[in-house]
Amino acid sequence: MRVKIGEEIKEMRAVWFEDGVVKLIDQRRLPSEFEIFEARTTEEVAYAIKEMVVRGAPAIGITAAYGMAQAWLQKRNEDEAFEILRNTRPTAHDLFYALEKMKMAIKNGEDAVKIAEKYAEDIIGRCEKIGEHGEKLIKDGYRILTHCNAGALAVGDWGTATAPIRKAHRKGKKIFVWVDETRPRLQGARLTAWEMVQEGIEHAIIADNAAGFFMQRGEVDMVIVGADRIASNGDVANKIGTYEKAIVAHENDIPFYVAAPISTFDFSLKSGDEIPIEERREEEVLFCRECRIAPQGSHARNPAFDVTPAGYIKGIITEMGVYKPTEIGKLKREIHG
Amino acid sequence: MRVKIGEEIKEMRAVWFEDGVVKLIDQRRLPSEFEIFEARTTEEVAYAIKEMVVRGAPAIGITAAYGMAQAWLQKRNEDEAFEILRNTRPTAHDLFYALEKMKMAIKNGEDAVKIAEKYAEDIIGRCEKIGEHGEKLIKDGYRILTHCNAGALAVGDWGTATAPIRKAHRKGKKIFVWVDETRPRLQGARLTAWEMVQEGIEHAIIADNAAGFFMQRGEVDMVIVGADRIASNGDVANKIGTYEKAIVAHENDIPFYVAAPISTFDFSLKSGDEIPIEERREEEVLFCRECRIAPQGSHARNPAFDVTPAGYIKGIITEMGVYKPTEIGKLKREIHG
Repeated sequence: MRVKIGEEIKEMRAVWFEDGVVKLIDQRRLPSEFEIFEARTTEEVAYAIKEMVVRGAPAIGITAAYGMAQAWLQKRNEDEAFEILRNTRPTAHDLFYALEKMKMAIKNGEDAVKIAEKYAEDIIGRCEKIGEHGEKLIKDGYRILTHCNAGALAVGDWGTATAPIRKAHRKGKKIFVWVDETRPRLQGARLTAWEMVQEGIEHAIIADNAAGFFMQRGEVDMVIVGADRIASNGDVANKIGTYEKAIVAHENDIPFYVAAPISTFDFSLKSGDEIPIEERREEEVLFCRECRIAPQGSHARNPAFDVTPAGYIKGIITEMGVYKPTEIGKLKREIHG
Repeated sequence: MRVKIGEEIKEMRAVWFEDGVVKLIDQRRLPSEFEIFEARTTEEVAYAIKEMVVRGAPAIGITAAYGMAQAWLQKRNEDEAFEILRNTRPTAHDLFYALEKMKMAIKNGEDAVKIAEKYAEDIIGRCEKIGEHGEKLIKDGYRILTHCNAGALAVGDWGTATAPIRKAHRKGKKIFVWVDETRPRLQGARLTAWEMVQEGIEHAIIADNAAGFFMQRGEVDMVIVGADRIASNGDVANKIGTYEKAIVAHENDIPFYVAAPISTFDFSLKSGDEIPIEERREEEVLFCRECRIAPQGSHARNPAFDVTPAGYIKGIITEMGVYKPTEIGKLKREIHG
C-alpha cells in the first residue's frame, strides 16, 4: 500500500518481519501519528494482536505466523508460543488457521521464517485476486459503502473489501466511497479514510447512523465489507454494525457483498450461531479516544462483532471468484477436491 | 426532572424563564459539567437553539416561546424576533408551531409571558400524559432500546420517549434501558444516560452499531424513540439512525414506538418526503468532542435526521393515546373536530 511520509510516497505493508522482529504500523495511533511498533518476543506479538496494534482477520493471521517464526528463531517451544498467541482474540478465523499451519510446519522441521513469509505473500496475493474479481462488480460512477477497515491495514496489503475499490480506482473508474466511521474504535474514520487519502480515492466519512439515510436516498450503489469468520451456510461474522447495514441494504435493494480470502471460511461451523463473539472492555464505548463521553455511574456493553445471516448477502468475493452464500458447499468441494 | 447537584436532589426543568432571562441547562457540556446558560436577548436565544445548548423538538419549542416573550418584554418587534428565532434549525416542527402561536398572541395584545408559560406547562403536561399512555405498553422486565435523547432535557420535563420509561420505573416495574450513544453528537451517551443515572434507572450505553446485535439476540423487547416531525401519513423524522433501528427492529419482530406530543405533527405534509432535513457541519463527524478522529484530507457528510416510513412503526404514543400510523387521519379529526 502507498503511504505518504512527508513528501515521500513509500510502498509498505501493515506488518512485516525484519531481523527477527515483527514490525507493525501501529494502528492505534493512526491517523494522527504514524509509528512502527516492534515486537521482539512472543508476548509482545500477543500484545500487538490483543491490544489491536494490528487488527483485521488476515493481518492478524500474518502477525501470528511471524510470531511463530520468531518463536522458532528464538528456539521457543512451539506449543507454548501457539497457546500465547492463540489466547489473544477469539473471533477471527485466520488467527487459528495461521497458528495451526505454523505449528505443523515447525513440527515437520520446516524453515518457519520461510513458511511465514510464504503465508504472508500468499494471503496478500489472494487479496489482490479478490480485488480483480470484485472490481468487475463495480461500475463506473459507483458509490460504495464500506464498514470498519477491511483495507490494506487489515490484510498487509490490498485489503479485502478495499481490494476491489483499489483495483477499480487504479483502472480509472470514477468511484466514491462512503466510509462508516465504525464506533467504538473508529476503524473507518481513522484507518479506511486514511487509506483512501493515501490512495487518492474520493470519499466521505459518515456516522454509522447515517448509512441508512444515504441508502434510502439512492446514494449508495453497493456495499462491500470484510469478514472475520464465515460459516458453512454463508453466515458472516464481521465488525459490529455489519448486520444492521446488511438489513438496511437489503431493504433498499442495494447489493451487499462480503470480501474475504478462503482462510476466513470456517467449514467446521454449520452456521453463524456457532461463531464466538468477543465482548471488549466497556471503556471503548464510555470513552471516545481520551475523552469520557458518558456520565459517571453509567456502564456500557461492547460486543466487537455481529453475525449477518447469509440471506442478506448477495455474494462473497474470494480469490477464487464470487460465490453466493448458497454456493459455499460447491466452494468447499473445489478447495478440498 | 431530578438533578443531583452534589448531595442535593433538585427538581429542575431543562429550560425556564426568570426575571426576563431564558435559562437553560447547557446540554453541550453534560455530562462532564453542569452549567446554566442565560440568554438575555433574542440573538442569544437563537444562538442557544442553533448551537444546541438546548435541543429536542419540544424543548426547542418552549425555548422559542420564552424567546418571543422576552422580545415582547423588551418591546422588540415580534416579526423581527420571529424571523431571528425561525432561522435557527429547520427540522423540528415544534419551533414553528411555538413561534406562530406566540406571534399571534402578541398581535392579539395578550400577555406573552403568560402565554409562553402556559405553552411550557401545556407541553410538559402533555408529555406526562404520553408517559401514562406509554407506560401501559411496558411489561415488567422489559428491556427497552432508545435512540438519541427524547428525554426530560429534550422537552423541559418527563421527556417523550423517556416519559413511559420514567412512569414505568416510578410504578415499580423492573425495566432496563439500552441507550444508543447516538453519534455524532452523542446525545444518548451524554444526555439520556445522564437522565437514567439521575433517575436511578438500570441501563447500558451501546455503540449505535450494537443495537442490531442485541435485537438479534432477543435482548430488546421494545424500542421507543422521539420525533422531530411527523407527517400526515405517519412518516417520522427523528435523529439520524432512527430509520436503521426501525428497520432492524421490524426485521426482528420487535415493536417500534414513536413518542411525541401533537405539536410535533405537521398535518400540512402528506409524507416524510416533504420534511426538510438539516445537514450540519462536517466537524461534528470529523471530531469526537475535542479530538480529531479523521485524517487530514478527509471530509464528512452529516445529516442530522432521517425519515422512518410509517410501515416500520407499530404505534405513535401521544398525549391523546397510542395511534397506529394509519390512524393519523382519525387523530387529526379528533383534534380539529
